[in-house]
Amino acid sequence: MDFIYLHTMWILIILTFISSVAYFITDELIPKLKELFIKAGLYGIDLCKTSKDKVPEALGVVSGCTFLVTSFLFIPIVFGNNLMDVKSFPHSEFAELLAALLSICCMLLLGFADDVLDLRWRYKLLLPTIASLPLLVVYYVNFNSTTIIVPIPLRQILGTTINIGFVYYIYMGMLAVFCTNAINILAGINGLEVGQSVIIASSVIIFNILELGGDQSKAHTFSLYVMIPYLFTTLPLLKHNWYPSKVFVGDTFCYVSGMTFAVVAILGHFSKTVLLFFIPQIFNFIYSVPQLFHIIPCPRHRLPKYCAETDLLQTSVTVLSKKDQDNLLTKFVLKIFKLLAIVNINENNECIYMNNLTLINLFLVKLGPTSEVSLTKRLLCLQIICSCFAFLIRYPLASYFYNISL
Amino acid sequence: MDFIYLHTMWILIILTFISSVAYFITDELIPKLKELFIKAGLYGIDLCKTSKDKVPEALGVVSGCTFLVTSFLFIPIVFGNNLMDVKSFPHSEFAELLAALLSICCMLLLGFADDVLDLRWRYKLLLPTIASLPLLVVYYVNFNSTTIIVPIPLRQILGTTINIGFVYYIYMGMLAVFCTNAINILAGINGLEVGQSVIIASSVIIFNILELGGDQSKAHTFSLYVMIPYLFTTLPLLKHNWYPSKVFVGDTFCYVSGMTFAVVAILGHFSKTVLLFFIPQIFNFIYSVPQLFHIIPCPRHRLPKYCAETDLLQTSVTVLSKKDQDNLLTKFVLKIFKLLAIVNINENNECIYMNNLTLINLFLVKLGPTSEVSLTKRLLCLQIICSCFAFLIRYPLASYFYNISL
Repeated sequence: MDFIYLHTMWILIILTFISSVAYFITDELIPKLKELFIKAGLYGIDLCKTSKDKVPEALGVVSGCTFLVTSFLFIPIVFGNNLMDVKSFPHSEFAELLAALLSICCMLLLGFADDVLDLRWRYKLLLPTIASLPLLVVYYVNFNSTTIIVPIPLRQILGTTINIGFVYYIYMGMLAVFCTNAINILAGINGLEVGQSVIIASSVIIFNILELGGDQSKAHTFSLYVMIPYLFTTLPLLKHNWYPSKVFVGDTFCYVSGMTFAVVAILGHFSKTVLLFFIPQIFNFIYSVPQLFHIIPCPRHRLPKYCAETDLLQTSVTVLSKKDQDNLLTKFVLKIFKLLAIVNINENNECIYMNNLTLINLFLVKLGPTSEVSLTKRLLCLQIICSCFAFLIRYPLASYFYNISL
Repeated sequence: MDFIYLHTMWILIILTFISSVAYFITDELIPKLKELFIKAGLYGIDLCKTSKDKVPEALGVVSGCTFLVTSFLFIPIVFGNNLMDVKSFPHSEFAELLAALLSICCMLLLGFADDVLDLRWRYKLLLPTIASLPLLVVYYVNFNSTTIIVPIPLRQILGTTINIGFVYYIYMGMLAVFCTNAINILAGINGLEVGQSVIIASSVIIFNILELGGDQSKAHTFSLYVMIPYLFTTLPLLKHNWYPSKVFVGDTFCYVSGMTFAVVAILGHFSKTVLLFFIPQIFNFIYSVPQLFHIIPCPRHRLPKYCAETDLLQTSVTVLSKKDQDNLLTKFVLKIFKLLAIVNINENNECIYMNNLTLINLFLVKLGPTSEVSLTKRLLCLQIICSCFAFLIRYPLASYFYNISL
């Protein structure tokens, strides 16, 4: 046992070292490849700046590729000890890692295709589902545990555990779709997508390290194998994407990040904990639902409005015409949102003006016009607070609801 | 044994059915997505036509994606029988399929990135090598057979078998790089890239079926699992890419095809047979070497020259200045090529004019100006003849050199 523990530590140290090298390579590559992206027409204009410079788009593909390459090079190292003795080779763990990398590689491809071709929504929902298929087969074969532990207050009705069977697989498939899209929705200002991903990744890593001595140590070691190279190849992207952005990360980055979190959540059996780290994204998603499903009109962009005179960001608004207001569902949603005081509404005889339903706009509603960089910082602070809250739920509070770990 | 054989047959029938569905979906998708590619700036002008229409480029990504999706959906079917009984699950075969799909997915990504960003040569050589790493690890773990059988005439010196150890892995890595680039070099006229790939794929499938009853039946079944969806998703691409091309396939297609062949060659243990199917590509590569390594000047494009008046293709030429001719190596190459009569040279006092060193140009040198469609047909005929020749070597002739199968 001690030997295995020591061996794992060594592998993790080597992985951290390789990942550091990957950090520097990524950091070199991003500015080098910028021109290539602009030449290929992959660029955007930063809407929250006065300058109309071309900013290269979809640079997430660079960090995604260095992430994959690092993981590939890492394969012989993690299985090196077993390579000497082929008979005892842990085929199932190897298949796990391959399935994880396959799903991530698929999302990298889909994300890049989306950035280049601007795909329709249906592909964005369909393809992550299919990309998670190898993952689910691996889960089925290696664990096939679809039993969930019932919280103590509900045990009198439901018993200690219930086997939800096939539903669990649907849940995992949906988790992959949710994670890949959730980060993509909470985006639009410099450094936010990468910032939140770095915080979530760090939280997952801390959680894994805390659990490394526990009875699920194998699952958490696996998660570290994926998260460490991910974090190290993402950090240089944050550096170049931080305010004022020299590169944009594109859907590519959001998809890869989302799938990476989904992969470790599923194969590491801590999907509930990962969802706790996603609290801001979940809130943002639920808050966005009325616009995503067109109960409230949804403009093409829901970015905050940039005011060049003050260099501050303001809430952007959507307009509800008389006709829109007649819809029963719309009325209901407006009522609920007003009641919860999470919307800013101005009316005249004709129209209702309300802020676009994103967490970013809600921050601007509550805290007033803010500069872009401090808005990003505040949102990232919220992400950190939520991670702390997640750890609070996960450790001291969980014992009230479960007498074993989540 | 009979039960396993019957079961395999059933799976192959189901796979062929799913792949047929994939054929129709791909056939629908390609014309539908054309506009998306043109809008994204992914298009080219057909240099061998009078019309200057925009032809969408890199449509290989569509067939590549349907190929991958088909394979993903096929995973639960091929392992379905084993899913019922998790304990006997063939982890190693599952890992094989995952590694194969991972390598192919990587090449799809690299190919598409190359089409969009126009990558440098060093990435084109480096990335396939890294993409083949999971494949090599799987090979090591599942087989690790690096022993090659010595042809009978050499056995007195070398013995019956020699273990070439690590060199075998270098050979396999180079095979991946060669296959991915070989198809890309024998390209440029409508339908040629896809046509040759379809012929090679069909040859591999015929070979696998012939060997299905033999002692390597597992490896050949695996190869069929990969090749059948590949063939069915590639056929619609051939339809749309055939003269006059409505779409171009891009590097994407060439890379995916090359890696697919490399994958089955490596994991199916019949790399020598696959290389026999690659005879035209190997010849074209060797013939191109003086230009690829700049011993002979290499223009940006080596496509045949289109003559609008006659609607025929003519050989394109490269010019050697006085200075170029002074190089000793260049002189040597010219001498050899003249001796073999595989080059057309015109000289004046100043310069030497010779055809660009591609198989396509060599055909034009030997057969005179030809229309594009019949040039493609002739080149594909050569490919078919080479496949027949490969079967001839593989079956009746092999017994002279080996007393067991290759």
